[in-house]
Formats: sequence, structure tokens, C-alpha cells
Amino acid sequence: MTTRILLLGAGRSASALIQYLLRQATQHNWLLTIADVNPAPLQALLQPYAEHGKAVAFEISEQEKLSQLVAEHDIVVSMLPALFHPLVARACLQHRRHLATASYATEEIRAFDAEARSLGLTFLMECGLDPGLDHMSAMPIIHEIRAQGGRLTSFKSYCGGLMAPDSEGENPWRYKFTWNPRNVVVAGQGTACYIEGGHPRFIPYQQLFRRVEQLEVPGYGTFEGYANRDSLSYRPLYGLENIPTMLRGTLRRPGYCAAWQALVTLGLTDDSYRLGNAAELPWAELIESFLPSAPTNAPLPERAASYLRLAPDGGEMQRLAWAGLFSLEPVGLPDATPAQLLERLLTAKWQLQPTDHDMIVMQHLFAYELDGEQRQRTSSLVVTGDDAVHTAMAKTVGLPLGMAVRRLALGMVPHQGVVVPVHPDLYEPILEELQADYGIRFVETEYALA
Amino acid sequence: MTTRILLLGAGRSASALIQYLLRQATQHNWLLTIADVNPAPLQALLQPYAEHGKAVAFEISEQEKLSQLVAEHDIVVSMLPALFHPLVARACLQHRRHLATASYATEEIRAFDAEARSLGLTFLMECGLDPGLDHMSAMPIIHEIRAQGGRLTSFKSYCGGLMAPDSEGENPWRYKFTWNPRNVVVAGQGTACYIEGGHPRFIPYQQLFRRVEQLEVPGYGTFEGYANRDSLSYRPLYGLENIPTMLRGTLRRPGYCAAWQALVTLGLTDDSYRLGNAAELPWAELIESFLPSAPTNAPLPERAASYLRLAPDGGEMQRLAWAGLFSLEPVGLPDATPAQLLERLLTAKWQLQPTDHDMIVMQHLFAYELDGEQRQRTSSLVVTGDDAVHTAMAKTVGLPLGMAVRRLALGMVPHQGVVVPVHPDLYEPILEELQADYGIRFVETEYALA
Repeated sequence: MTTRILLLGAGRSASALIQYLLRQATQHNWLLTIADVNPAPLQALLQPYAEHGKAVAFEISEQEKLSQLVAEHDIVVSMLPALFHPLVARACLQHRRHLATASYATEEIRAFDAEARSLGLTFLMECGLDPGLDHMSAMPIIHEIRAQGGRLTSFKSYCGGLMAPDSEGENPWRYKFTWNPRNVVVAGQGTACYIEGGHPRFIPYQQLFRRVEQLEVPGYGTFEGYANRDSLSYRPLYGLENIPTMLRGTLRRPGYCAAWQALVTLGLTDDSYRLGNAAELPWAELIESFLPSAPTNAPLPERAASYLRLAPDGGEMQRLAWAGLFSLEPVGLPDATPAQLLERLLTAKWQLQPTDHDMIVMQHLFAYELDGEQRQRTSSLVVTGDDAVHTAMAKTVGLPLGMAVRRLALGMVPHQGVVVPVHPDLYEPILEELQADYGIRFVETEYALA
Repeated sequence: MTTRILLLGAGRSASALIQYLLRQATQHNWLLTIADVNPAPLQALLQPYAEHGKAVAFEISEQEKLSQLVAEHDIVVSMLPALFHPLVARACLQHRRHLATASYATEEIRAFDAEARSLGLTFLMECGLDPGLDHMSAMPIIHEIRAQGGRLTSFKSYCGGLMAPDSEGENPWRYKFTWNPRNVVVAGQGTACYIEGGHPRFIPYQQLFRRVEQLEVPGYGTFEGYANRDSLSYRPLYGLENIPTMLRGTLRRPGYCAAWQALVTLGLTDDSYRLGNAAELPWAELIESFLPSAPTNAPLPERAASYLRLAPDGGEMQRLAWAGLFSLEPVGLPDATPAQLLERLLTAKWQLQPTDHDMIVMQHLFAYELDGEQRQRTSSLVVTGDDAVHTAMAKTVGLPLGMAVRRLALGMVPHQGVVVPVHPDLYEPILEELQADYGIRFVETEYALA
């Protein structure tokens, strides 16, 4: 019997997933249906796979169509924005279909666990990059250290979607948007919580980008990491309830965070109120609105530097000026939030060019005691994109998900209910396939502390 | 016919209001009913006014009792928390009763304007101190300058509930709680907006207590003011739609704001998440949780000063240490928000003692052009409390409200619908009565700029 797979959403990050699933469909005689708001551009891609792939128009507001599509397939793969996943999961329960996504197994999704289990369904969540590959790559090390009799004292894990060195160009931020720009602009809002030496630590949003840690990735130089909002909820997932130090963070190139901190301090990442501005308002005038009244006639950048306590010709101010904060460029949107205007400004400046190569960097840092010795192990991954379509982001999100779906379709996933890839029978073959077929592999270094 | 007045709520700020209304009740043969959750302590106060005053038990959750009480009276005065006023206003509409409060005429309250008007009712809002006396004292000056042919270019207005110099004691903050402590702890959250030289200015919360202005009040020394959240919505109320500069702010003694900024920077005023802490957690350990991990063995206050970029023995650190931030005192509440713990700590330290004298300070600063000359006028008010019950806060909130209620009861308020005291026929007699009977008066200085 032909296995029918439904992919909901074919956005920016889905290119590698679609190609992987189409190749597998040919090999295993599956049928892949891609449902997207804009199916037309998919036709060229599907041409060579006529018997195994088709695209249909679909919007999430079409509730009956969702129900019908889910009913007509065996496995549902969702690349829709995460907020729609409960809706999709409910349709899967109704029609008794498996589900796979690259999104977080939220409380709302976890609430479906018992019902999915009772129906013999598998809801594979967190099978992309972060979350996804982070679990798959950290778990074997945690299992190995434990099997050796080691005691983990610290686990820090960082991930970032950046630009390959050859595509950073003259952009002093060394950053472009490779996923949802809005999420980058409002990243970290709330309070970051992690644990260090057994004590909880809290970082208010307004201090987050000041509190960075430096990391080295062999062959790729220095990065800086800022803490993610929640580092603690992963402790039970990893079986590390009592680990003294645990932190998850996001990677940027050095200098990014200090400059971003200046945007936060000015108030430009605030999405909670509208400015009542005209679309024609020049950026320089908007920035003026966030400064105290001028006691001097000094130029705007100089006054901004003084207010922000930054060197007028330092790296932070260079980045702000490059972004256009002090320019006469119009903000372009009427009555917008500061965050909306900042997103608009940066989307123009941080746009991926067709031949750009993006770069995914992930690093796990473990500290553990073994036979009375303090040891450290670092595991690092670097993946580079081919171009603006076949990005490292699309590969590292889509391939692990595609491989998980393949295993589900072939009946090789023995787990039911809401599942995340922390089981060796799930992550081991996926890590092997990533390495063998795509050269995606983690490089480890291990040493004893003096 | 006896006028029946219902006072809802007899909290801390109601003492002067109750005494005023009881004296008026005797004089005009009114009946005053005081409805409060805890009516017992009012009996002694009411004893001498047996025929004119009584107290009844009432909780806002008792909807039917509210309806019944409102129905049995002619005028409803509410000193309940402002969030209950729409509920009270609806009962007043239902039973066709007048309403008077010291709270803001919010959008929700303004929505009742047409209906109140059509029923011939007066809903007197903003009749306390701030809002209240601020309008009453600013309007005559605005009217006078305009009548002279002057053009207002700047209006800044500040108010603060502080301590009289003889009651500041050794407290380096020179501040104690004279109203709702929670409101003081979360004061200013959001983004402050004002206008300066015709341009809007925004101050994110995280910068608010850095951006203070110094003020002098003759005979009382120096104060500092920080901007209130909304300075702009008052422009139409004052008929100052096109004034280039307008700001409303809150007064503190010098040094308070820089130390409060340190609490904000640490994250201690955040009320948006719970810490998961034990009640026994010592304050020093809580503060440790908000600092980066210690690279040195330096003592906590030293590391905190370095993180906050403060002089270790400067005024800010002295205030933080005095408050007990670095002490072994337990935080006292389990799983609380940072703001809840800070409120608890400060409530102990900033408690009004029975013989303390609080002090209300209000200052308006006007700049205007008259006959080609740039002129400034300053109008200042200082009111001192008698003790911890008969506070300046209770007098300045309660007396203007009581006087407004008196005029309403005597049929001397010709305005209907939702009314705020910007009309001369309302504020002039109240300002006169405050000065003649209570010595509460503004002192003005006026001069031409060089």
C-alpha cells in the first residue's frame, strides 16, 4: 500500500525537506502532497516526480480542507508556524494520523500525549535543528559519559544561524536574516533563566546582550553567545535534573550583542506600543525621540554615543550607523511599534543575496568528573549553505525532520504519543544518515583540566 | 429632604475626606454612609455624628448589596481601587445617582459620558490630588496667561508624596510609603511619552530613572522628577493641543532615582514572572541570582557595584545596602515575583511611623511669550501631614474631593456627564476653601528670562 505523506507549509526553510521527501517518495513509492498558500512555484520542483508528488493550495483558515487533507494521508508533516500545530494535531487525532514537526513540544502539544498514545499514534516533535539536532547530538554524549561512570557538572549548548565567512562582506554585524526577521528583533524578551553552580541565575532582557560568553569553533574563529529564555525545562528531558550548571544560548559573531544591546537600550526592540509616527519620519528623527533633549548642538550620532555610553567611533556605533539609524531614510510604516520599524530597516540591510552562503553553528560544552579527574568535552557542528535557497538553515531544519518522517513511514519508530528525539533508536540512525549522505557531522574535542 | 451620601471604601487616604464629609453632614443635615470591608474601626470616629453618619460592611464582590446601597443614596463617592469604578458607575447609571472619585477618567469611564448626560447625572472624576488639585491649580494660570495674550510654550508639572524634612531620619532614600506600595514598586513600567520643542520623546522604562530633571521648591530644597507614562493625553483637557513642550512627572528627593534605577537594572521591579524561590531564601542570595557568575571572590556588594557601574561607596550603593539587599534577611514569600519581594522588603523599611509627617509637593513650571518677552512662572505647593493617620496625602486627596462632593450635594455643579475639574466654577471655590480653611495654597514666582 502506498504511504501518503502530507506536508503543510512550504516556506523558506522547507527546500531541503521537500527534496529529501521527494527522493524518498520515489524510492519507497510514497505519495507526497505539499499544501501551501502559494503552490505555483512548487510545480517546477515537482515536475520530475510527477507520480510521487503534487502541490495543492491551502490556507490554515480552511478548517474543512485541513480535515479533508489530513484524512487523505497517513503522515502529516507540518512546517506551518508553531502556533497552528495544536490545530493540526487535533485533526491528526480525529483522523488517526501520525504527525511530525520541527517545533517545540509545548504544554499544549504535550496535552495530546495520552490520546495519541491510546490511538497508537506518534507525534514526533522537535525534529529540526534547534530544537532537534541539538537533542540528537547531545544525547549520545550524555549517554556515553554516563556509561563510563562520569558525573556531568556542566552542560552549555549554543546554536546560531549566521553567515559563512565568505558571505559576511562589509556588513559589520556579520549577520543576515535566515529565518523569521520578527523573531530575531524580539529575541530574548522576558527574563532568561539558567542554572550555574547549583544556583538559579536570572538575566532581565535589558541586560541580556551585555551578558555574553565567548566561544571558539575550530576553524571558524570566535563567536559570542547570549542565554536563551529557558535553559531549565530541558533538564528532565536530558535526565539532568540535578546538574549544577546548565545553559542554552544563541550564537552571534563578536560585537553583534554589544551593538544589539544599544538598540535594546534605545527602546527600538519594543513591540508593546505604537509610536503614532508618519511613514515619512526620517530615521534620524525617530532616534532623536529616544534621546534626552539636546543640551548641545553636537551631531546626533555623537549625542547617541554619549547617551549609550559608547565610544563615538567604536564598533557598536559603526554598526548602528551602518544599519541606517542616523540616516534621513524614512521609517516607511505609519503608526508602528519600534520593533516593527527596526524589523523593516534591518530586513532591507540584512537580506540574503542569491549567492550568499549562510552558516549554522552549534556547540555543546560538557564538563564532567571521571575517576577523580575534571574533564571537558566540546562538540561542534558547522554547516554551510549552497545559496539563498539551499541554505544551511533549510538543510539542518529539514533533513533531520525528513529522516524522522522516513523512519516513521517505514515503521521504524517504536515510540508513541508525543515524542522528541532523545531515544538512541531515533537519533543514532539520523546522525549516521546526516554524516554519510550530507557530510553533516559534529567534531569533538576532549581534554582533562589541569 | 436629607441628602444621602454613600462613601465606598475607607482606606488609608480617606481620613480627611471622612472628617470633612461628616462636618458638612452636620451642617447641612446630610446622611453619610461609609461602606467598607472593615467598618468596626470607623465607629469611634462616627460616635459624635450619630445622626449623620453610619458605617456598614461591604465588599465589592457583593453585587446586589452595591446595587442596593447605590439605590438608597443620592451621591456615591468612591475611594475604592480605580479598577472597580466602572462597576460603581454602572450602578449609578442604573439608579440615576451622581458619582465622585479621585481617580482617572479612563476611556472606560468616559464611555459612560453620553448616558450620564442623558440622565442628568454628574460623574465627577479626577477630584483628588494627582489627578485633581493638579488640574485645579494649573487651569487658573493657563487661563490667566491666555487672557493676558500670552502664548504658552512649555508646561511641566510634577507631584510627589514624600516625607517632611523632620521625618526623613537616617533613611537615605528620604522616602516612605504613603500610598499603595505596589504602585510605587511598579511605577513607570511601560514607556513614558512626552513632547519637547514640538517633538515627541519616548523614555523606555529601563532608562526612566536615569532621565531625571532637578527642581527647586523655595524653602524645601532640591527635588528630582522623572516623567510619568503619559504626558500627552492632557493636552486637549488643558486646551494646549499645540504646546511645544509638555511633561508631567513624579518628584523624589535627589539620589532616589539613581538608586531606584539600580533596582530596575537588577530586575527587582519585574512583576511578570515567578522566581520559584523558597521563603527562606536570604536576600543576598537572591541578589546573587541577578548577577553574572563571580570571576572573583570579591564580596557581593562590591560585585553588584561593579555590575551596576556604581561607586562601591556611593549614594546608590548606600541606599541599596540600607534597604537590606545584601543582608541575610529571608525574602519571606515563596515563589514570588521579584516585584513582590521588593515590595515586602521596602514595606518593612519604608513604613510610616505614628508620629511621622509626610509631605506632598507639587510644582508647575510654565514658560510663555508675552509682548515679545520670554517669561517663566512657577507655582509650588507643599503640604505637611499631622501624623501617620492625618497625612498630607489624605488631606490633599480627600479635601478637594470632599469639597467637590459638597458642591454637588448643594446643587452648585452645573456640569453633567463625565466631568473633570478644569472649569473655573468648580476649581475656584475649591482653591479658595482649601486656602481659607486649611492653609493649602500654591506659591507663585514669575520672572522674565534674560
